[in-house]
Amino acid sequence: MNDPAPLPAIDIDPDRLWSTLMASAEIGATPKGGLRRLTLTDEDRAMRDLFAAWARESAYELRVDRLGNMFVRRPGADPTAPPVLVGSHLDTQAKGGRFDGVLGVLSGLEILRALDDHGVTTERSIEVVNWTNEEGARFQPPMMCSLAFAGGESVEWALQRTDKAGVRFGEALEGIGYQGDTEVGGRQLDSYLELHIEQGPTLDQADVDVGIVTSGYAMRGMRIQVLGETAHVGPTPMHHRRNALVGAAYAAVAVNEIGWRYAPEDGKASAARIDVWPNLPGLLSDEAQLYIDFRHPDPQRLEHMADEVEAAVAESARKSRTEITVAERWGFGGLRFDEDLARLLFDRAGAMDLPVLEMASQAGHDAYHLSRVCPTIMIFTPCRGGITHNEREDVELSRTVPGVRLLLHAMLERAGYRSP
Amino acid sequence: MNDPAPLPAIDIDPDRLWSTLMASAEIGATPKGGLRRLTLTDEDRAMRDLFAAWARESAYELRVDRLGNMFVRRPGADPTAPPVLVGSHLDTQAKGGRFDGVLGVLSGLEILRALDDHGVTTERSIEVVNWTNEEGARFQPPMMCSLAFAGGESVEWALQRTDKAGVRFGEALEGIGYQGDTEVGGRQLDSYLELHIEQGPTLDQADVDVGIVTSGYAMRGMRIQVLGETAHVGPTPMHHRRNALVGAAYAAVAVNEIGWRYAPEDGKASAARIDVWPNLPGLLSDEAQLYIDFRHPDPQRLEHMADEVEAAVAESARKSRTEITVAERWGFGGLRFDEDLARLLFDRAGAMDLPVLEMASQAGHDAYHLSRVCPTIMIFTPCRGGITHNEREDVELSRTVPGVRLLLHAMLERAGYRSP
Repeated sequence: MNDPAPLPAIDIDPDRLWSTLMASAEIGATPKGGLRRLTLTDEDRAMRDLFAAWARESAYELRVDRLGNMFVRRPGADPTAPPVLVGSHLDTQAKGGRFDGVLGVLSGLEILRALDDHGVTTERSIEVVNWTNEEGARFQPPMMCSLAFAGGESVEWALQRTDKAGVRFGEALEGIGYQGDTEVGGRQLDSYLELHIEQGPTLDQADVDVGIVTSGYAMRGMRIQVLGETAHVGPTPMHHRRNALVGAAYAAVAVNEIGWRYAPEDGKASAARIDVWPNLPGLLSDEAQLYIDFRHPDPQRLEHMADEVEAAVAESARKSRTEITVAERWGFGGLRFDEDLARLLFDRAGAMDLPVLEMASQAGHDAYHLSRVCPTIMIFTPCRGGITHNEREDVELSRTVPGVRLLLHAMLERAGYRSP
Repeated sequence: MNDPAPLPAIDIDPDRLWSTLMASAEIGATPKGGLRRLTLTDEDRAMRDLFAAWARESAYELRVDRLGNMFVRRPGADPTAPPVLVGSHLDTQAKGGRFDGVLGVLSGLEILRALDDHGVTTERSIEVVNWTNEEGARFQPPMMCSLAFAGGESVEWALQRTDKAGVRFGEALEGIGYQGDTEVGGRQLDSYLELHIEQGPTLDQADVDVGIVTSGYAMRGMRIQVLGETAHVGPTPMHHRRNALVGAAYAAVAVNEIGWRYAPEDGKASAARIDVWPNLPGLLSDEAQLYIDFRHPDPQRLEHMADEVEAAVAESARKSRTEITVAERWGFGGLRFDEDLARLLFDRAGAMDLPVLEMASQAGHDAYHLSRVCPTIMIFTPCRGGITHNEREDVELSRTVPGVRLLLHAMLERAGYRSP
């Protein structure tokens, strides 16, 4: 490798970054120090308002599309050149942490501010995006608004999704006043870079501050439907029973045990949600649904896992005398991010003398969908103990800043830095 | 045994009984031919209004107590003598049948009408009761208003129970206008007789129309609480996981398998309801609750089942790396009904030339609580295929009438029949 080009003398302000993170951490704060900021709720609206206010303060342009995706733009010298996009999401899980997603959006904002501090002009515009409903904690599936942005599903499809209470996504979006009029997607982007906490323990345990994410684990999800028959819990003989709850429980146990069998090769399998009807103490239930999720670094081995899951589901039906069908299947990942962007990141890290790990993402990210429409890459920063989707999720600023600096320098290259 | 005393020439009107059953079957009817008449809902109110209207039509007295238990009284010659009480409940499961409980109340009403038809006077008053919330499908526990009537819990305790939506029992009772001013219990009863469909296949398969229920199976229930930790379904390594859903699933499977082990001796075990938080597709859950129910004809063997259930719960905690505690325990049954009343029923059945089976009840009934405060007995009639707590629950009138006739003749003896 050639010697890397020297770094421009531009830096972010770590304290300012932290202060925006802590301002965010007050909106939807939980007693245990986490966040509950479900998409399209009052808390989400309050956070969006704050993000918009920050954009206005710095005179950036703000566009909101028909799915509520927010784009904060710092114009470049050539307004017709496709912009560099960075960002992540500001919504959280029901019992989420303060950094998952938020760090990616507010790092982007901090970088725009740093460019202002140093009077930097870039050739391309830079946009910071807040994707709506990345978590999928209220409306399923997760990452649905970047999916629609990338043309994977229609806007109408997204607007019609409903939450557990039957509220339509479109209604909820109008309710918080963030249904914009910008069309969803359909425009050229130079690139998409997403910085995110790792959501696993690798960086923390290796004592390395930056992961360059060059690929994503293959993931499969399914919703199985179990049909049984209601009957009295008392007199009904065991051999007459068709308890849907028991069918789903057999499947949940089997899926968990498949996870353990693949654990040595870093596979995972989860029984992640169960719904049972009528679900009453005096009654055997006639319907249950179970959400299953499994992941593997090797797409071929994932196929083996899929076969085992299907066999376990059939066996669970037999043991419980119920009928089980796969009502829905989905999947993502199993992809490689852009090689040029990866090379750029390794090069800038070299110029910064920054130790990095090459990694594969195990979680889903909006970057997966963006990679369909433009060159895409991700940067991971450590989270303490790998604990995430948890109110105890935490980061250290000193171990976070190197990743944000790497993002800054990669973006400067990509956006066409002009020294002032 | 002596020759039985001859039967008075008094009979019920089977067609009239059927017409009241079918009028009830319209209130809360489901598309599949069952009933959804959850306690203290509009449907329950409508059924209560109809029952009250029938009482008024025949000029019976109606009293409603502070828990909504309804007592329809046909006065006897001696108004100070403790009355004979018959009845059951008019509420149903969420997906219930048309006869469970309803048959017991409307058989009582039919018997009062038959006494009117024949101009019969009884020494004691006869009362037909509709117990509030027998099913426990909306407020737990089941049979809570007969429990309070029998002094097993306070009225205040019952009024404070809440449903899944957080509505208090007391509010809901006021809401349908059935909070009466009669004190709950605290008065002398001569006896309590409850006629009920069997809720099991024994009578149907044996082709016998009447069961004399001399005892109740011992039953235990428990609610276990599983505590785990939320984490991302993707990157979290299997050996870091503490998924509460998986803990509850292990317990549900183990309980079901305990049921199978005791099935040859007629034991049963049920995983009957599961609740999980936050219960989302992207997240391992940190809390779950599972309702467990197990029953056995032999109280000593039930103790063995209880030991196995406790061991299975501990093993489920170990396998899922969760903490599981028993949050609540309850039980009923394991009792013998009154011997004099049993003898009376066998005697009257003999006089009627009616084949009967002596049986033990496997389901819970208000009669269990009443047996604490007065001599109590139950009569079972067949239900088709033993199917119950199910919209397909069904009976044949011709196989139901013999049990109602037996009830009539037993009540005449007990209430002090005076020929007109």
